Amino acid sequence: MSHNIIDKIDAGQILNETRLAKGLTWRELAEQIDRPVVWTVAALLGKHPVPKVNAVRVGEILSLDDEVVSALQRQPYRIADAGLATDPTVYRFHEAIDVYGQALKELIHEEFGDGIMSAINFSVDFAKQEAPQGDRVVVTLNGKFLPYQW
Amino acid sequence: MSHNIIDKIDAGQILNETRLAKGLTWRELAEQIDRPVVWTVAALLGKHPVPKVNAVRVGEILSLDDEVVSALQRQPYRIADAGLATDPTVYRFHEAIDVYGQALKELIHEEFGDGIMSAINFSVDFAKQEAPQGDRVVVTLNGKFLPYQW
Amino acid sequence: MSHNIIDKIDAGQILNETRLAKGLTWRELAEQIDRPVVWTVAALLGKHPVPKVNAVRVGEILSLDDEVVSALQRQPYRIADAGLATDPTVYRFHEAIDVYGQALKELIHEEFGDGIMSAINFSVDFAKQEAPQGDRVVVTLNGKFLPYQW
Amino acid sequence: MSHNIIDKIDAGQILNETRLAKGLTWRELAEQIDRPVVWTVAALLGKHPVPKVNAVRVGEILSLDDEVVSALQRQPYRIADAGLATDPTVYRFHEAIDVYGQALKELIHEEFGDGIMSAINFSVDFAKQEAPQGDRVVVTLNGKFLPYQW
Amino acid sequence: MSHNIIDKIDAGQILNETRLAKGLTWRELAEQIDRPVVWTVAALLGKHPVPKVNAVRVGEILSLDDEVVSALQRQPYRIADAGLATDPTVYRFHEAIDVYGQALKELIHEEFGDGIMSAINFSVDFAKQEAPQGDRVVVTLNGKFLPYQW
Amino acid sequence: MSHNIIDKIDAGQILNETRLAKGLTWRELAEQIDRPVVWTVAALLGKHPVPKVNAVRVGEILSLDDEVVSALQRQPYRIADAGLATDPTVYRFHEAIDVYGQALKELIHEEFGDGIMSAINFSVDFAKQEAPQGDRVVVTLNGKFLPYQW
Amino acid sequence: MSHNIIDKIDAGQILNETRLAKGLTWRELAEQIDRPVVWTVAALLGKHPVPKVNAVRVGEILSLDDEVVSALQRQPYRIADAGLATDPTVYRFHEAIDVYGQALKELIHEEFGDGIMSAINFSVDFAKQEAPQGDRVVVTLNGKFLPYQW
Amino acid sequence: MSHNIIDKIDAGQILNETRLAKGLTWRELAEQIDRPVVWTVAALLGKHPVPKVNAVRVGEILSLDDEVVSALQRQPYRIADAGLATDPTVYRFHEAIDVYGQALKELIHEEFGDGIMSAINFSVDFAKQEAPQGDRVVVTLNGKFLPYQW
Amino acid sequence: MSHNIIDKIDAGQILNETRLAKGLTWRELAEQIDRPVVWTVAALLGKHPVPKVNAVRVGEILSLDDEVVSALQRQPYRIADAGLATDPTVYRFHEAIDVYGQALKELIHEEFGDGIMSAINFSVDFAKQEAPQGDRVVVTLNGKFLPYQW
Amino acid sequence: MSHNIIDKIDAGQILNETRLAKGLTWRELAEQIDRPVVWTVAALLGKHPVPKVNAVRVGEILSLDDEVVSALQRQPYRIADAGLATDPTVYRFHEAIDVYGQALKELIHEEFGDGIMSAINFSVDFAKQEAPQGDRVVVTLNGKFLPYQW
Repeated sequence: MSHNIIDKIDAGQILNETRLAKGLTWRELAEQIDRPVVWTVAALLGKHPVPKVNAVRVGEILSLDDEVVSALQRQPYRIADAGLATDPTVYRFHEAIDVYGQALKELIHEEFGDGIMSAINFSVDFAKQEAPQGDRVVVTLNGKFLPYQW
Repeated sequence: MSHNIIDKIDAGQILNETRLAKGLTWRELAEQIDRPVVWTVAALLGKHPVPKVNAVRVGEILSLDDEVVSALQRQPYRIADAGLATDPTVYRFHEAIDVYGQALKELIHEEFGDGIMSAINFSVDFAKQEAPQGDRVVVTLNGKFLPYQW
Repeated sequence: MSHNIIDKIDAGQILNETRLAKGLTWRELAEQIDRPVVWTVAALLGKHPVPKVNAVRVGEILSLDDEVVSALQRQPYRIADAGLATDPTVYRFHEAIDVYGQALKELIHEEFGDGIMSAINFSVDFAKQEAPQGDRVVVTLNGKFLPYQW
Repeated sequence: MSHNIIDKIDAGQILNETRLAKGLTWRELAEQIDRPVVWTVAALLGKHPVPKVNAVRVGEILSLDDEVVSALQRQPYRIADAGLATDPTVYRFHEAIDVYGQALKELIHEEFGDGIMSAINFSVDFAKQEAPQGDRVVVTLNGKFLPYQW
Repeated sequence: MSHNIIDKIDAGQILNETRLAKGLTWRELAEQIDRPVVWTVAALLGKHPVPKVNAVRVGEILSLDDEVVSALQRQPYRIADAGLATDPTVYRFHEAIDVYGQALKELIHEEFGDGIMSAINFSVDFAKQEAPQGDRVVVTLNGKFLPYQW
Repeated sequence: MSHNIIDKIDAGQILNETRLAKGLTWRELAEQIDRPVVWTVAALLGKHPVPKVNAVRVGEILSLDDEVVSALQRQPYRIADAGLATDPTVYRFHEAIDVYGQALKELIHEEFGDGIMSAINFSVDFAKQEAPQGDRVVVTLNGKFLPYQW
Repeated sequence: MSHNIIDKIDAGQILNETRLAKGLTWRELAEQIDRPVVWTVAALLGKHPVPKVNAVRVGEILSLDDEVVSALQRQPYRIADAGLATDPTVYRFHEAIDVYGQALKELIHEEFGDGIMSAINFSVDFAKQEAPQGDRVVVTLNGKFLPYQW
Repeated sequence: MSHNIIDKIDAGQILNETRLAKGLTWRELAEQIDRPVVWTVAALLGKHPVPKVNAVRVGEILSLDDEVVSALQRQPYRIADAGLATDPTVYRFHEAIDVYGQALKELIHEEFGDGIMSAINFSVDFAKQEAPQGDRVVVTLNGKFLPYQW
Repeated sequence: MSHNIIDKIDAGQILNETRLAKGLTWRELAEQIDRPVVWTVAALLGKHPVPKVNAVRVGEILSLDDEVVSALQRQPYRIADAGLATDPTVYRFHEAIDVYGQALKELIHEEFGDGIMSAINFSVDFAKQEAPQGDRVVVTLNGKFLPYQW
Repeated sequence: MSHNIIDKIDAGQILNETRLAKGLTWRELAEQIDRPVVWTVAALLGKHPVPKVNAVRVGEILSLDDEVVSALQRQPYRIADAGLATDPTVYRFHEAIDVYGQALKELIHEEFGDGIMSAINFSVDFAKQEAPQGDRVVVTLNGKFLPYQW
């Protein structure tokens, strides 16, 4: 029985510190393991179980200890963090849903029928769009439509 | 002094019932007033002040009473609706932010610097993506990057 | 423009009073419209849009006004009702999830992989099981497994 | 006086890590102690006092320390974990109750009378149902009806 | 279809006003319908469905309208009232549970085993105990022990 | 200045573990110090200051360290534990107050006048009542009536 | 059965408007019914049942309708008003308790023993103290000490 | 740089334990430093910065370590403690404000004008009033009236 | 007794609609009654009692009914509106305090001593600052320092 | 990989203690690094990433360890601290927004149009204003107006 169990969240923080110390960007790390960048950041910070091949590769790139590599592979608890939701950078996303969520619901029902956009069969893309009046953050949410189906 | 003040939220509900009774989709209505579809739904349901020219045009299309047309133009309170946030169709968007919000924060800081994606200088696009394993909802959030700037 | 808009929740209450006055059980009503019983109760009380054919048939059986029949067909807001959750009959279900939810999560991940039981592609069955020491309520939740799939 | 008191929750985590390290599934473990699988997972993670014979047997199978075996047998506090309730895999169960709880209450009262489904004289079954369009999670809640009885 | 549906809570308030106007105590009313006094007050204020024979008798005693007598018989929602819980007379009961609840849990487990005192197969008795230093309120909670029983 | 200050809650947990290890029931312990059993459990778990004579006696019976004996005598903070209130065994008591609290308030006012049942000049009795259909938990709350008295 | 039941809170508001319209101060009104001023304001605004003699006298002074006079005499619900607690004039009192409550608890225990200051056998006095640097509000809380007494 | 930083709250607890061990009452301590007793208890438990002369004197009287004496002098955070507010001895003060706060607001406005009683330019006095029917706690709040003044 | 009591909040809404209908800005209205602009808006929307001379003048300018003019003069409840606090325009102010509040506290203590900035002896100024990269909102909070003074 | 990771909040506390021990005011420190004073306090306490040149300079001035200097430069989580918001010195700012926030919203919309004052492109100034009746705290919030712009 292992005496060095590390929590996934702690593993993610250790990984992140190491990444910063090595001067590696998230995007470079994502490219090196050939995975989408938002998935990579979320997974390495503890929101997804990292497949063994990716976890081992990240461990090699960053010279992580085995228990960190092991923790990355474990199944997560994806607990909503009420504190984090007040960070201004994160809050703007929730505010956008508070303002436009009803409109999105109307359009999903109008164009797809009664149901939801899955947050499980789902991906997020992140891009930087250059613009003369200031660069723009472009986040694309892409989820399978799931009809209410008895 | 007007004795027929209608609340913006009530005005939006009357408008929506009328729209459904006439068999007009949100997308058709948006095209007729030549405005983006998510903006149109949100604004007509009370989340934005509707410019006079658009409000009057919508009033003509749907044969709305003057006080409804007037209410559409008023400045809104954009109150977050805690009940609505539990509707499954809306909840999935908040859940996605709960799962991926930290990753989006990391990437904004990595690629843009310390700051936020504006939810004010901001647009949302909604699209239906056909796919063999089931159609997909594609929602694109596009906001100007605002650096913390003293 | 209709001047007799009835809220779906109010429509459900009118329907329910009428059903009780006529001495018709939910199960009989479900059979007459040939739909599953839990779906029927939930939908007629406002949690689902009722297909036109079912709504019209229910309207005939219960002699409901047109605006009630119309309200049944509208798209619902499925808002979580914090008050209802404290009713002892409803609370026991939440308590069961509080006690066994972690175990269900462990087993879903063990036997299906990383993902969820859908609450959308989902049905609920309700049965009475006779037993010598007292009858038992048997509720079966049946949802499609959705793997986290990027 | 023992100086090695281990919390039941901590004992469950140690047990789980050891189980994973040994490559033993929950279902295999449940079979080896001849107990239902949902009960086994819940109890070993700290939600029930484990009878001595089962605790000792689990201790042998997993080579657990005595204080872990002892902790498994203690009476638990079954505190509702508000954080866990936001994990998407667990949340779907609460959402299902939010959507269908009122219907279940109606049917319990209609078919059994005024009362509740016990969450104490109660069992949960978990099964995997294979289906051409994707496997399904089947969770059966089975509780004794308790009439309000003065 | 009845057009005079009265809410159970409203029915209870009408009943109570009428009772006070007639100068009838709760205890007298309970005796006249031959039911326990705490049950009678709770049920007539809307916490229980009142059996038809009792509801009709109360209606006669207090000359209540038919829709009130009818409302008394309906199945209740027993929603916890967070406001009421702050009334000093009610708060003291919750405070007593906050102070002594853990001790009651210890003793239930010690003397009965793992389980609960049912709040459904349950009665409450209320008595006035005369004492030289001031009369005392004596409330007896009597519930069937329900063992956790899979 | 003492360097071995133990928190009252921690002292109670040490005491309880020791008690269990010695196979002594709460009731036996209460008899040995000649105090009511609910008071004894509550006080030894930290809800009351234990008089020196009782604390010393308990220390002797259980061979507790001096700082534990000392902690038992300190004045407590009787903080309401929101987590504990969700434990099913404790929750049923709060639920009973939620269902019957208004009735108790009505009867207190009817039979005593405007005022409360004291939770300070107050005792709780716990008993096991044998019954053919299952043993019953009987909890008696006995508090001095305190009239609102300016 | 009375058809003109007025809520105590509403009765208090009607009374207050009438009082203001007549230019009568609370202190004058208290003197005219020979009751303490804080009691008078609280009771007439619905926090206490007003004895018949006082209610009738107030009704005469202010020419109140009978149903208002009747409402004043009813037993109140003394619900804590979370909104009112944020009014700056009321908030300062709660803030004072937040800052000094622990000190008051220490002193009550030191000088009286384990127990509380009753809020039931309790009076509040309000005075204006003139001072060169600005007048001062002096509020005196006077409650019977109640020892924890089993 | 000091390596022995002690938190003000921790400093207060150490001070209090030492005080109790030495058998010194709060009132005696307050007299020895010639400060009001409620201020003394609050300040020494961490709610106020203690002037150096008082902190040093208390340190001498109780033989406190330098870092405790230093901590007493630091500026506090006066965070409202939601747990403490549920302690029965503290709760009664908040309950009194919940019941009489509106009346105090009315009287402040009537006798002083629109404004508040300051909780900053403010003192609290604590006294024991002997009475034949039981001693009374007398707490006097004395705060400067501050008019809303633009 | 007046039968036309209007709530201050409702009075403010009527006033505001009338003002908009007349095309009068808040700033023009403030100038016409010679009061600061932020005070004027807040007071006319119900946050302050409006002095009679100002209320009457506003009534003349806007041709308001007497009961509106009367309501403006009444003492307000200044209840914090949790919904309004989520409106994006208002939220940014609370966010600024969440980010900079601790720094403001440090500086108040450093430069003034232990105490607060009064929110009662307090004014707010609002200005538009033109700037090449976009106009700026300048809000100046000006409150008397109040030292903790026993 | 660094084994001496310090949290930004902890780094801020160490820095502050060192600053106090050295008798350096925040304003002096701000001047020495030539940055605005409110920014300096907020940033050094962990609310902003401190540019390397400023962090190194502060490290020299205060002789801070390298890991503290490093922590100062990291990207922060700007979590709203609900406890801090109850500190009286901080609370007054939130109260001011609760009282005047609606007025500020009205004026922003009237003079700028539909939009917000940015809390990101934003600065805060702090000044002491001497006045004969007591010095005043003057806090100036200065944020770029951001129009809702699709």
